[in-house]
Amino acid sequence: MSDSPTILICNDDSVDAPGLRCLIESVSGLGHIIAVAPSTPQSGKSSAITVDKPLRIARRPDIGQAEVYAVNGTPVDCVKLAMHTVLSGKKVAAVLSGINHGSNAGNCVIYSGTMGAAFEACMLGIPAIGFSLLHHSWEADFSQCGHFVRSITKAVIDKGLPKGICLNVNIPARCIPNGVKVVKAGEGYWTEEYVDYIDPQGRPFYLLTGRYIDTNPESDQTDSYWLDRNYVTVVPVRPDPTATDCLEAVGNIIGE
Amino acid sequence: MSDSPTILICNDDSVDAPGLRCLIESVSGLGHIIAVAPSTPQSGKSSAITVDKPLRIARRPDIGQAEVYAVNGTPVDCVKLAMHTVLSGKKVAAVLSGINHGSNAGNCVIYSGTMGAAFEACMLGIPAIGFSLLHHSWEADFSQCGHFVRSITKAVIDKGLPKGICLNVNIPARCIPNGVKVVKAGEGYWTEEYVDYIDPQGRPFYLLTGRYIDTNPESDQTDSYWLDRNYVTVVPVRPDPTATDCLEAVGNIIGE
Repeated sequence: MSDSPTILICNDDSVDAPGLRCLIESVSGLGHIIAVAPSTPQSGKSSAITVDKPLRIARRPDIGQAEVYAVNGTPVDCVKLAMHTVLSGKKVAAVLSGINHGSNAGNCVIYSGTMGAAFEACMLGIPAIGFSLLHHSWEADFSQCGHFVRSITKAVIDKGLPKGICLNVNIPARCIPNGVKVVKAGEGYWTEEYVDYIDPQGRPFYLLTGRYIDTNPESDQTDSYWLDRNYVTVVPVRPDPTATDCLEAVGNIIGE
Repeated sequence: MSDSPTILICNDDSVDAPGLRCLIESVSGLGHIIAVAPSTPQSGKSSAITVDKPLRIARRPDIGQAEVYAVNGTPVDCVKLAMHTVLSGKKVAAVLSGINHGSNAGNCVIYSGTMGAAFEACMLGIPAIGFSLLHHSWEADFSQCGHFVRSITKAVIDKGLPKGICLNVNIPARCIPNGVKVVKAGEGYWTEEYVDYIDPQGRPFYLLTGRYIDTNPESDQTDSYWLDRNYVTVVPVRPDPTATDCLEAVGNIIGE
């Protein structure tokens, strides 16, 4: 195995998540696999980093042929600390994140800890892919993911990705997908975001929920559209948020 | 004041940060100001959301003419909960975030809680600007920020911003800036990211630090370049990370 490529696997649902095990099994044999995942669930952590508390990394039992480690931090902490410790000085062929329990389509990508890990790897120049299954349950059936996860990963390891780009892959959960579509993120926003409560002392508190509004549901260019039609979607995403097409317009607005 | 525009102010350094006070004072008179900020520092929280614990919002003493509230969550939680509670049903003319104690230039933008709040507002269709001063200290001198913060905010309220775009504004801290440049985010990455420690029980732990490597320091098209030359920089940024220019290339790679 010493000449085989090293693959780092992360996620945001924690080292104990079934989706992590599925991702490891899906790419078994493609390389030497190291999994470094959060010790507790980190959903919605985006690209958050831990700036103010000690981080630790602890060996866990292997999963299949993967060496597994847990970190008491965010998905981005996992990538950074993996590169600093177990992968120090090693060339990493790919970073895979997931498989997330739940969709990261549409504008969910910006909140996603799964994609936070992929963005981090991408900024280090490593080909990176985030995978998500459109099912939140811990008991979700990941069996239909394997084929797509493996073929997309193999293509990326063999051919690379454009500079500064990583992939956000979502997999529908209803039945065997019809195929794969490379598309844009769907446009949308969240509404009715909280349920309001009153605690025993009479004070209000709020718990996050929300309903996603697709603002362009007719467009056949988006992940939301094709996921609804039972396709795996691949969105090429760029960690650098600069809107290069708007430099002149913004210069005119602020009177540079 | 009932006809004046409503301005929401957030930050990531907490409701007690001097940068929040400076931002409020800088835009005084431009509208009715509501500040909703985290009750504790949230640096590096990116677009993280709190998915699993009760959020509360509490009235704090006014700062200048601003109504002030604290939220026990992230910067994005502050924007979402402000819209759900104190701003429910109100039209918001602009969301301002900051003034951050420290740079959000180069690739720092992806980790920034300050910019997380701006991205969130942008996705709700509200003109949004994140402001940062290149000085980490709680005692930083914000006096040179006021003029630039006010003029950029006024231009954005008067003229709007392109759809799906918000602004990442960084302000140099050495002396009065020479002017304003609308530019791209500098390209770079972090290295030497942790200091290694051993605890009294002999177990290793790690604290985040890091050195930023500018991978294109000669380019005069970036925020890093112009901040070094004492200019205020404005980077138009887009919450949607889709790399629309790479759809075809990625289609070829994964064999869609």
